[in-house]
Amino acid sequence: MTSVSLNFASDNCGPAHPDIMAAVLASNDGHHKSYGADAMTQAVTAELRRIFEAPQAAVYLVATGTAANTLALSCYTKPWDAIFCHRESHVETDECGAPEFYSGGAKLSLVDGPDRKMRAANLTQAMEHSDGSVHQAQLGPISVTQATEAGTLYSCAEIEALCKIAKDRGSACHLDGARFANACVALDCTPAEMTWKAGIDAVSFGGTKNGCLAVEAVVLFDPDRAWEFELRRKRAAHLFSKHRFLAAQMQGYLADGLWLRMARSANTTGGLLTRGLKQHPDIALTYEPEVNMIFAEMPRELHQRARAGGALYTVYGNLDSGPMEERLNSRMVCDWSKTEADIEAMLGLLR
Amino acid sequence: MTSVSLNFASDNCGPAHPDIMAAVLASNDGHHKSYGADAMTQAVTAELRRIFEAPQAAVYLVATGTAANTLALSCYTKPWDAIFCHRESHVETDECGAPEFYSGGAKLSLVDGPDRKMRAANLTQAMEHSDGSVHQAQLGPISVTQATEAGTLYSCAEIEALCKIAKDRGSACHLDGARFANACVALDCTPAEMTWKAGIDAVSFGGTKNGCLAVEAVVLFDPDRAWEFELRRKRAAHLFSKHRFLAAQMQGYLADGLWLRMARSANTTGGLLTRGLKQHPDIALTYEPEVNMIFAEMPRELHQRARAGGALYTVYGNLDSGPMEERLNSRMVCDWSKTEADIEAMLGLLR
Amino acid sequence: MTSVSLNFASDNCGPAHPDIMAAVLASNDGHHKSYGADAMTQAVTAELRRIFEAPQAAVYLVATGTAANTLALSCYTKPWDAIFCHRESHVETDECGAPEFYSGGAKLSLVDGPDRKMRAANLTQAMEHSDGSVHQAQLGPISVTQATEAGTLYSCAEIEALCKIAKDRGSACHLDGARFANACVALDCTPAEMTWKAGIDAVSFGGTKNGCLAVEAVVLFDPDRAWEFELRRKRAAHLFSKHRFLAAQMQGYLADGLWLRMARSANTTGGLLTRGLKQHPDIALTYEPEVNMIFAEMPRELHQRARAGGALYTVYGNLDSGPMEERLNSRMVCDWSKTEADIEAMLGLLR
Amino acid sequence: MTSVSLNFASDNCGPAHPDIMAAVLASNDGHHKSYGADAMTQAVTAELRRIFEAPQAAVYLVATGTAANTLALSCYTKPWDAIFCHRESHVETDECGAPEFYSGGAKLSLVDGPDRKMRAANLTQAMEHSDGSVHQAQLGPISVTQATEAGTLYSCAEIEALCKIAKDRGSACHLDGARFANACVALDCTPAEMTWKAGIDAVSFGGTKNGCLAVEAVVLFDPDRAWEFELRRKRAAHLFSKHRFLAAQMQGYLADGLWLRMARSANTTGGLLTRGLKQHPDIALTYEPEVNMIFAEMPRELHQRARAGGALYTVYGNLDSGPMEERLNSRMVCDWSKTEADIEAMLGLLR
Repeated sequence: MTSVSLNFASDNCGPAHPDIMAAVLASNDGHHKSYGADAMTQAVTAELRRIFEAPQAAVYLVATGTAANTLALSCYTKPWDAIFCHRESHVETDECGAPEFYSGGAKLSLVDGPDRKMRAANLTQAMEHSDGSVHQAQLGPISVTQATEAGTLYSCAEIEALCKIAKDRGSACHLDGARFANACVALDCTPAEMTWKAGIDAVSFGGTKNGCLAVEAVVLFDPDRAWEFELRRKRAAHLFSKHRFLAAQMQGYLADGLWLRMARSANTTGGLLTRGLKQHPDIALTYEPEVNMIFAEMPRELHQRARAGGALYTVYGNLDSGPMEERLNSRMVCDWSKTEADIEAMLGLLR
Repeated sequence: MTSVSLNFASDNCGPAHPDIMAAVLASNDGHHKSYGADAMTQAVTAELRRIFEAPQAAVYLVATGTAANTLALSCYTKPWDAIFCHRESHVETDECGAPEFYSGGAKLSLVDGPDRKMRAANLTQAMEHSDGSVHQAQLGPISVTQATEAGTLYSCAEIEALCKIAKDRGSACHLDGARFANACVALDCTPAEMTWKAGIDAVSFGGTKNGCLAVEAVVLFDPDRAWEFELRRKRAAHLFSKHRFLAAQMQGYLADGLWLRMARSANTTGGLLTRGLKQHPDIALTYEPEVNMIFAEMPRELHQRARAGGALYTVYGNLDSGPMEERLNSRMVCDWSKTEADIEAMLGLLR
Repeated sequence: MTSVSLNFASDNCGPAHPDIMAAVLASNDGHHKSYGADAMTQAVTAELRRIFEAPQAAVYLVATGTAANTLALSCYTKPWDAIFCHRESHVETDECGAPEFYSGGAKLSLVDGPDRKMRAANLTQAMEHSDGSVHQAQLGPISVTQATEAGTLYSCAEIEALCKIAKDRGSACHLDGARFANACVALDCTPAEMTWKAGIDAVSFGGTKNGCLAVEAVVLFDPDRAWEFELRRKRAAHLFSKHRFLAAQMQGYLADGLWLRMARSANTTGGLLTRGLKQHPDIALTYEPEVNMIFAEMPRELHQRARAGGALYTVYGNLDSGPMEERLNSRMVCDWSKTEADIEAMLGLLR
Repeated sequence: MTSVSLNFASDNCGPAHPDIMAAVLASNDGHHKSYGADAMTQAVTAELRRIFEAPQAAVYLVATGTAANTLALSCYTKPWDAIFCHRESHVETDECGAPEFYSGGAKLSLVDGPDRKMRAANLTQAMEHSDGSVHQAQLGPISVTQATEAGTLYSCAEIEALCKIAKDRGSACHLDGARFANACVALDCTPAEMTWKAGIDAVSFGGTKNGCLAVEAVVLFDPDRAWEFELRRKRAAHLFSKHRFLAAQMQGYLADGLWLRMARSANTTGGLLTRGLKQHPDIALTYEPEVNMIFAEMPRELHQRARAGGALYTVYGNLDSGPMEERLNSRMVCDWSKTEADIEAMLGLLR
């Protein structure tokens, strides 16, 4: 009998996929060149170029999403630039100022929009706010989070519209794809359509949240930035010596479309959970979930009942004190390993 | 029949130990708290405190040696400080300016000394060079590499003498222990003796080069720096979300003294190789090897013969062109997995 | 016959006061110690301590307002901190990211409020936005601009309320006093009341805009920061070798209350201009002017007429193209040298 | 009766030239555009272009030598670069790490050579030390100090040789000309010969030490760096609002060759002092003085006698305690205002 999992705290709380573990294990075969000169890294680079239909792209592996985002962004940002991102994007709210650190002190210019998506009009306004004089921050890149931190999605057309606003002003375009796979599957589009075909210059292609141990790829469609990226990565201490262990994870992740299968699974269980929560008369969803992440508001009493039943997820506010009927928001995330039984069990606690 | 390994390029070219792989595999059991709040991280922290006899120490895990060094150093360095290290230390020659980046622009003040060890008199001279005025770099920490990049060792008394020079001037003391285990075994001393008992404030305790995949511990004996370290680690994108996979490596590394056994093995094969090379009339060692790393000078012809036989190691200079009798220096490193048969095979090529 | 001045572009377009010029000239008497060790610098330091009723304060002179602001702030800001300031404060909109540069990459957290004044409720909200975790920017200092960039004023009680919010959370308080004198005169308060008695820790005490050539004082009421400030000033290349020429300006500025007389003059002509503009049926003031700066909205036609008559001031938008009746905002500033005749002439152009 | 000056501590202890004071006074005529948009700044820019025979050059004014050096260098330095300079150059020993701060953490690679001049062979060796890999600092610009901090000079041919070494490797060339005028006069060469004709890309053209109050020009022969320089200058808080007061100093400095006349005067009195010191049997000069700065070693007794007579200059070591015959080194600098009588008086004290 397998026990169900009631941990919905984050997709980074879940396990790695056994196939990825197996790939890591298999890569531990004797001696290999270090610092990414090994054959497996070369193979994975080629595979990512193929998947992105970008034979010239520079491809790099790092171990954390913040490293991927900030190293990619810093190649397109001068210290005196502003980076344009949503007010509630990961680079602004969850990286302890890493983009500022890596860029040498750039500003993050916060753009508004519903569903934690930058609205085109707001981006235009933000980019036109600067008068371009020496007294003000200069126009730097935009960073688009896909899927967003709200579990919502930009359509490819929306990404293209944002990129056009940036490109018309000479700015580069970065896509924070910590949940790239979930977005790709939900939109049923190709990686190329969601990125360079829409105007994106640099992608953080997430693996960690979607069943890897700790690996993200950075894909730079303009290979002119390759050497700068390599210097920044080393200088930031993100170049692994036993690089094959990053490559092995990515190899396992990409093999036979495992990355898409895991994302599909997470989105599917996310959808089941969404449906169940919507049917509950006392629960309201903050956003319309499009991938594997759900924000649900409900009375304290329900949260306490769920917790008493063993459920783990993020509740905003003080779960323990206050009137039982007070409504508290919360976040639930389904990782690739969630099953229908898990969702059933979770919904059961709330019913 | 097992084939021999002739790869002596670096200890970061070797495999991870199967027991460490097994520990990683075992840690992949369902859901855990992220960002280091998991139980395994807590257990590993306790174990490192025990090993270092430092119950109050702050202990952190990161994935690269450069991250360990520069995060540790940056907690003790103001942007206007000088860090005192040997002219050929890793922090100076192999980190692409990471200490400067992390510290916000500190200087590295390069101290001389034979065997790539800072000589006490030279450290004193370097620290007294500044007049302390606002025009000059201020006195920052010292960084001692143990074992050195030459494969040589400081005695505990030598470390203590350097720390005393620093402490008398109010400076903190960092130990770069990328090869900590090799040094510990060779000196037959305890971790405490080699560190805080000698005056060290912060240690980079290496795992990667000694049989792990990618993990290093930072031990800060003064827990007052703990929060600053945590902020710096996150801001530098070195805080792992699925932190258990760092912790699992370290757990396997420390279990039943595996870390010491692997280091002993590497030192032993290093010793065998040393003896064999010394017996060769055309080979001269640059330093007296004390751990698992050997610098050997020999005629181009010998290097070419070794290469033709399949040997891999670092040759300084152009191996392919020049007179056959010209002597070129080289570096050979034995990782934990090397066997007597490997050494025999290597020496056989050179005979 | 003296010609009138119609230049209202900024108080940094006006001349230095002749008495200050005379002080600079008088200081050019032979040889003096450099880098601030001269007697005149010591005398000016004592005088500023007296004026601020702060005998222990550390006092420094620099040549630009941005240097004063960013050096002062950086002594109270960690790289991972957020600085809390109004969305339209000088440190955010007019310093090309200098606070980010000097602090090593801190964030500016933008606080709203009418009249370009931080509203207490908004400051509280901004400071409570962070959850204090390692993922987010930490609480850094607040920076209050007095007089504001809108020509409005905080009362001393309002400053005290903002400082209390900051101090309750362990944050330091900076006052950007580029127009300190204008505020002091308008509020009829003492420098101490507007600063340390209200909770301010560090002041940028402006001289340049109010009749000096190029000098600002930084007053740190907590002398523990003195040495750090000195290092930051030198490292940022703001320590003058012939320091007496900064000191001489400040000496002349403070002598016999010249600084207050000039500010009073500027405020008075500002008041005359305000009254005149208010009487014009087609002109609307954006803010209620409290010092020497006025934002006035009027039809393009009026702006064009003023320009044709020789007036110089900042018009927002395109002065040359568009319907004559379209209303454009503008900014007019009276420096210390403006006369009643100047104001009369200016108003005459608009009538 | 005019009293003699016995202050030889530094050329930054002397007065400004009356003609420069007069120029500043004359510039204080009503209102002008701020931030360098005034006519006088334009005129001075044109004059510097003429003097340097560089009609396309970008020309900027700042107030300190360290600002000129570090802003100029930072336009040619990536954060991961090494700047090559003499071990005892001003940028290394007297700027509190300003080049590191402005460049975002570059290294200073210290080159040896007698007379505080980089020897060509040592520069070549230093630049060839890096293997160019991602692990090491990359090749950044060279910085040549002319005149040196020892009071010695590079010939134009020597500058050209150093620049060639740099340019052959793709590196830019900076000249720290805090004492540019003294060098120009001593070499009897044109500004162009000493700079761009020899391969220099950017010059710090000193004014402060040679009779100004506080002004230095930066001349960038490649105008492509102009905008970056302007952003860096503003962001570093070195853009003056009342910019005319910088321009006026430079105008007075350049008018009728005043800058050359003052330097000639300083060199001449320096020469007189040199001759007198050489004739003294107990005094030995450390370097052969070529401009206005002399390093003289003599017994403590002589130093004490000079001090007792009112002389001021830098003595290295403890003047007060030790045997009278112990020899202490010292530095004496003649500023533009020194007279034959001053030299006579100084020598009289030592006889």
